[in-house]
Amino acid sequence: MASDRVTGLKANKGIELLTMETPNGVKASILLEELKDAYGLDYTWQRINIMENIQKEPWFTKLGPNGRIPVIVDHDKGGFAVQEGLAILSYLTRHYDPEHKFSFSEPLDISRCEQWMAWQHGGLGPMQGQANHFNRFAKERIPYAMQRYTGETERLVGILDNHLSSTDYLVGNKFSIADIANFGWVNILYFSGINLADFPNVEKWWQRISDRPAVQRGLAVPQPSQLGNKAYQQRLKEDPEFKKQEEEIKERIQKAKEQYGYKYSSP
Amino acid sequence: MASDRVTGLKANKGIELLTMETPNGVKASILLEELKDAYGLDYTWQRINIMENIQKEPWFTKLGPNGRIPVIVDHDKGGFAVQEGLAILSYLTRHYDPEHKFSFSEPLDISRCEQWMAWQHGGLGPMQGQANHFNRFAKERIPYAMQRYTGETERLVGILDNHLSSTDYLVGNKFSIADIANFGWVNILYFSGINLADFPNVEKWWQRISDRPAVQRGLAVPQPSQLGNKAYQQRLKEDPEFKKQEEEIKERIQKAKEQYGYKYSSP
Repeated sequence: MASDRVTGLKANKGIELLTMETPNGVKASILLEELKDAYGLDYTWQRINIMENIQKEPWFTKLGPNGRIPVIVDHDKGGFAVQEGLAILSYLTRHYDPEHKFSFSEPLDISRCEQWMAWQHGGLGPMQGQANHFNRFAKERIPYAMQRYTGETERLVGILDNHLSSTDYLVGNKFSIADIANFGWVNILYFSGINLADFPNVEKWWQRISDRPAVQRGLAVPQPSQLGNKAYQQRLKEDPEFKKQEEEIKERIQKAKEQYGYKYSSP
Repeated sequence: MASDRVTGLKANKGIELLTMETPNGVKASILLEELKDAYGLDYTWQRINIMENIQKEPWFTKLGPNGRIPVIVDHDKGGFAVQEGLAILSYLTRHYDPEHKFSFSEPLDISRCEQWMAWQHGGLGPMQGQANHFNRFAKERIPYAMQRYTGETERLVGILDNHLSSTDYLVGNKFSIADIANFGWVNILYFSGINLADFPNVEKWWQRISDRPAVQRGLAVPQPSQLGNKAYQQRLKEDPEFKKQEEEIKERIQKAKEQYGYKYSSP
């Protein structure tokens, strides 16, 4: 609908979030919902339909030059705009988490948190994104790329699983922006062709985070995604057509792995 | 040579850098050389030959669970280890750049710096890395992937070029870790199949940074790479065999772009 097309900012105070229901988008909305619960911080949001390339329009790239969602604008800081998920989570906690409920004040914990956020931002995110592309969206079926990126994503999730064998949360045994950064992508692992249940520590961590009310609300901004693990598994049960189609995708990935002799080995 | 195989840490004070002469590796060595010039900070390093998978050995993954270089160990902080380039640059400036010569103290500049570092860490780095893989290293020739990643890298370098049209450095018109993070990858653009000269602002910025003595020393740790723009262009002039081989690679990339109707458009 043309009338839905966002053409500029709408708020003049507080944080305004420009987003869509993607693994990177929900990082920002989850933290904003947590900050709302913890401090009463209010925010507004607008849905940027990336299928319509709104994020490539001049008014948007003036705020986020990379032309990607999410972007936040802080109207209380002269309209300062922040792009890149890692930088958004850091900015919001630096300015709006004075009690360090989702961040850290001890220097080595600050680094631990930064390391897991960077690990997600440069590894899990981009690589799982490529797995989605080649397993799902690319018009060509390219087995080499399918197994390359599915395999790398499995390796990365295995590293999370190792780490989570001895702790409930990624840093300091406390729920933080390190968890939020990683949660968005773990939350669509089934969609990406990875069996979350093969990584029991990650699965329990994912469940633990999913249970938080603010996380559930954050996942519904701007609207619930059908790609999340819960919706995906529900649909598998209820929709035989979907199940059949998904089994075909899984088989295709499995064949690609076999063709290149790929075998998961714990990292 | 088996005797060169690093089997553990060697220092017991200061910063110890585990690295190799790659675009991510030189981020750390360049900053450490700058900190040496600025503050007299000393450090030791060991070369981790990633071709021999030393970064996958248990002594290494205990320090850097992701099994990638660079990793730093701060012996003066109880052997605290840091992985991920972005987190290494942030850690080193947080602890060893008290005058903010390469970092920032003003909150919005801190965010600007973080945004450009995250942009590199999640975009330019991973995508240019995939371009290298498909243009150079993959055993299969896959035109779709070649043009996908070469094209995305060009788009990203175009964003840098736009930004650098009005400033000499990425943040606050001051040389900082935002520049260091991006320099490592820009420094091998020719190798990746991208014509640096097509991006005049980036080229001038690259030259400006290359001229710094500490950068030149950092690029030689653990040893000079043959993939850097300078070495690459020198070899093109001197080695007709190399020139011929490189022209073949360029032609292959060009054909892949044409096959998929790819055309660079300024971002």
